[in-house]
Amino acid sequence: MGIGDFVGSGDARLDSQLLFTAEIDKMTEVLRRTLLINGSRRENDAEHSWHIAVMALLFSEYALEPVDIGRVVQMCVVHDLVEIVAGDTFAYDEEGNRDKEERERKAADQLFSKLQPDQAAMIRSLWEEFDRMETADAKYAACMDRLQPFLHNTLTNGHTWVEGGTDCSMVEKRMDILREFMPKVYEWMRLNLRNGVEKGWLRP
Amino acid sequence: MGIGDFVGSGDARLDSQLLFTAEIDKMTEVLRRTLLINGSRRENDAEHSWHIAVMALLFSEYALEPVDIGRVVQMCVVHDLVEIVAGDTFAYDEEGNRDKEERERKAADQLFSKLQPDQAAMIRSLWEEFDRMETADAKYAACMDRLQPFLHNTLTNGHTWVEGGTDCSMVEKRMDILREFMPKVYEWMRLNLRNGVEKGWLRP
Repeated sequence: MGIGDFVGSGDARLDSQLLFTAEIDKMTEVLRRTLLINGSRRENDAEHSWHIAVMALLFSEYALEPVDIGRVVQMCVVHDLVEIVAGDTFAYDEEGNRDKEERERKAADQLFSKLQPDQAAMIRSLWEEFDRMETADAKYAACMDRLQPFLHNTLTNGHTWVEGGTDCSMVEKRMDILREFMPKVYEWMRLNLRNGVEKGWLRP
Repeated sequence: MGIGDFVGSGDARLDSQLLFTAEIDKMTEVLRRTLLINGSRRENDAEHSWHIAVMALLFSEYALEPVDIGRVVQMCVVHDLVEIVAGDTFAYDEEGNRDKEERERKAADQLFSKLQPDQAAMIRSLWEEFDRMETADAKYAACMDRLQPFLHNTLTNGHTWVEGGTDCSMVEKRMDILREFMPKVYEWMRLNLRNGVEKGWLRP
C-alpha cells in the first residue's frame, strides 16, 4: 500500500507528475490548529486549501484592486504544499515563525525537486508570489488564508484563540492585510473581535 | 458551536457569502469510496476537490485541446459542492447513477440559493459546464476527476475496485474520457488496468 506500489509509464516526465500527485496526498496528514466548523476535529491542509480556493470565487468584489481569480485559485491550492515537509507553523507561534522562512525554503527545494524543472518553477513561483504578498492576487489570496480560520474561530467558540491564550491585538495584527486590502470585510471582523473579547475567547 | 453562532455584518450580501463559506465546510463530511494513499481512511470531498485542482496545474500538456487552467481549477474546486446535499454517488453504482442528475439538480437549487443570484449563477454555471463535459476545460477537469481515484486505487491494492467487485470493462468505460482526450495518460492507465487484473483487484 502506498507510493512503493507505483507501476510507471516508462516516461520519466509523466511518472514525475503522477508520483508528485501521490506525494502531495500527504497534505491530508498535515493538521492545522483550526477546528472544522462542526467542531469534530482539526482540519487538515488539503481541506483548508480547498476551502480558501472556493472562497476566492466569492469575495473579490471587496478587494481594493482588481484580481485574476483563476490565478488566485491556483495560488490557494498550492500555497501550503511545503508544509508536507516543513509542517504547519501556527500563526501565533513566535518561535516557530522565526525560522519558518528558512525551513520552508528548504522544504520547497526538497518537495518541488520531484517535478521536472519547468513544473517545479511554475509551482514554486506561485508559492513565492503568495508568500511575498506584494501583488494584488497574492494579497487577495492571503486575505482568504486569514479570513477562513477567523470565520472558523468565530463559529467554534474561539477554539484556537482560547487554546493559544491569544491577545486580541495579535489577531488584529494577523488580519492587517484585510484591514488594508478588504476594509469592508475587516469591519465584520472588528465586530467579531469585539464579540470574541466579550465572550472571553480573546484577551483584551 | 457551528453556524448558529454567526455574528453577522448587517450586510445581507456579505453575510450570504460568509454563511455559504461556513456551509460548504460540510464537504469535509462527505466521504468517498476512495482511500487516502496512506490507506488510513476514506478521503472526503474537500480533499478530493483540492487534489484534482492541483493536478490540473500539472497534466495539461497531455490534453488534445488547449485548456484554460485558471478556469479548470475553479471548476475542480466547485464540481462536487452539490454532494453536501445529494451525497456522493459511487461511480460504479448503477442504481444510484440513474437518478443522480435529478437529485443533484435539486441539491444545487437548495445549496446555491444561499448565495445572491449572481454568485449562485456563477458557481452553478461552472458546475453545469463540468457536468456536461462538452468544452475542453470541462473535459480536462473530468479527466482529473477520474485520474485521481484511479491513481489512488493503483496505490491501495485496488481498494474500491475490490470492494465493489468491479469488472475491468467498467473502469475502462469510466476512463473513456481519458482515452479520448488524454491518450498518453490513458496508455499508463492501460498498463495499470492489466496490472489490476493480474493482481486480482479487477475482474477480467
